[in-house]
Amino acid sequence: MTVMGIDPGLGASGWAVVTGEGETLTLVAFGAIRTDPAAQLADRLVAICDGIRQIVSVHSPDEVAIEDVFLAKDARAAFALGQARGAAIVGAAQGGCRAHSYTALQVKQSVTGHGHASKDQVGFMVRRLLNLAEPLRPADCADAAAIALCHLQRSRCAMAIAGVTP
Amino acid sequence: MTVMGIDPGLGASGWAVVTGEGETLTLVAFGAIRTDPAAQLADRLVAICDGIRQIVSVHSPDEVAIEDVFLAKDARAAFALGQARGAAIVGAAQGGCRAHSYTALQVKQSVTGHGHASKDQVGFMVRRLLNLAEPLRPADCADAAAIALCHLQRSRCAMAIAGVTP
Repeated sequence: MTVMGIDPGLGASGWAVVTGEGETLTLVAFGAIRTDPAAQLADRLVAICDGIRQIVSVHSPDEVAIEDVFLAKDARAAFALGQARGAAIVGAAQGGCRAHSYTALQVKQSVTGHGHASKDQVGFMVRRLLNLAEPLRPADCADAAAIALCHLQRSRCAMAIAGVTP
Repeated sequence: MTVMGIDPGLGASGWAVVTGEGETLTLVAFGAIRTDPAAQLADRLVAICDGIRQIVSVHSPDEVAIEDVFLAKDARAAFALGQARGAAIVGAAQGGCRAHSYTALQVKQSVTGHGHASKDQVGFMVRRLLNLAEPLRPADCADAAAIALCHLQRSRCAMAIAGVTP
């Protein structure tokens, strides 16, 4: 099963494609879509939507998972982030994948075992689970990989409960 | 000049297409894109994006204007609204129009003459400016028409300053 994780943001949206075959988790590709802060909002949102759609088309993930980041600093930040997330979800859908949502709490709990883990702890576990020689940089990509790992784990649990072999 | 105004929302996004020829302002079409609160977020956002793109394709507005509603009740509401707005802006762009942003203050100021006008005052002026027999319902459509009127007025001012005949 191949999962693409997305950590959306107006300035930078991290993404990571992870496969899970049996016990083996592999990082297939990762990156970040950056937008010019001086550009028009519409152009920035289209860049996010188009970027995500293209990555979905290239890597054909079975499923897409995206962070639900509603706990922003303030309403203004939440609004900017919401617009970026809306554009990313539309991009994934236009690429053929309906995005599954996970809160930061769920992602941390799934990857590190506790919901209040630090960014460094998440980065450490992502590196370990994916057997990487170095930490994933930038941090947006590590977060995106953590979201993908969270979805893989939850899907496996769901399949195990349903009695399906992954 | 034909302008499409959008009042974005996750549950209902109002839209209105208005033409301005000399002093004559005409309401060409209006409506609201409603999404099922029980549906998946991705499907709701795609419905907004697709809906706006189709309306842009059908009515071919010269320009699109959208309300910048960052002053939501709280971060959670702002986040939901941001996602809807992101999907609407992407839809307009995919239809060929880059959306111009106006704050509620700018819209009220432009349509009623003062920035702290009530919803009813905005509705009254929309009805009067567009010479409608009845108030525009639902309220989302009246707001969308007000946004279109605001953009028309501001474009005319810009053209007048530049010495261009509309």
